[in-house]
Amino acid sequence: MAKLLQIDFPFTGPFGSEMAEALKGLAVSITEEPGFIWKIWTENAAEKEAGGIYLFETEETAQAYLEKHTARLKELGVEKVNAKIFDVNEDLSRITKQQSRNT
Amino acid sequence: MAKLLQIDFPFTGPFGSEMAEALKGLAVSITEEPGFIWKIWTENAAEKEAGGIYLFETEETAQAYLEKHTARLKELGVEKVNAKIFDVNEDLSRITKQQSRNT
Repeated sequence: MAKLLQIDFPFTGPFGSEMAEALKGLAVSITEEPGFIWKIWTENAAEKEAGGIYLFETEETAQAYLEKHTARLKELGVEKVNAKIFDVNEDLSRITKQQSRNT
Repeated sequence: MAKLLQIDFPFTGPFGSEMAEALKGLAVSITEEPGFIWKIWTENAAEKEAGGIYLFETEETAQAYLEKHTARLKELGVEKVNAKIFDVNEDLSRITKQQSRNT
């Protein structure tokens, strides 16, 4: 069953178009991770936070990615990563206009 | 600018199809909230947690919904709600196959 991975962490930037320019190579590489389906990139310049909402094919691939990404963030100076893995309730999400597999 | 609202909280169920049956009326009502675009329903029966990833038209509508939903959860016995509001980095999300407005 597909798993939703929710990640956020303290981040001092870059944000917005500058972040997009700096991280587009990373974004392409993330699409090649085992089990990857999609990611929404999240950022809050005022609160100095960033993160991502991901869908992976399985719990194992979500966990493996989380370990890899946490290590990568640590190299970038991010010590504390908040992460949770969830199932998606597809019946309710269909009603609220966002099936996880739509795109 | 659209805002992503990330919510999670301790939850003892129901989960899965039983949750979908119990909450489908709520799901329909959520689609009628001011500024609502979409919601993905999240749940983790093993960790006893649930939540949602939402997109709203503006920060104001996301905040107003968060206040309403937090009050509703409190009535259901949920005392502690974790919530964060983010911008979506659309350029990076496009690369990783999930534009927030696709659906």
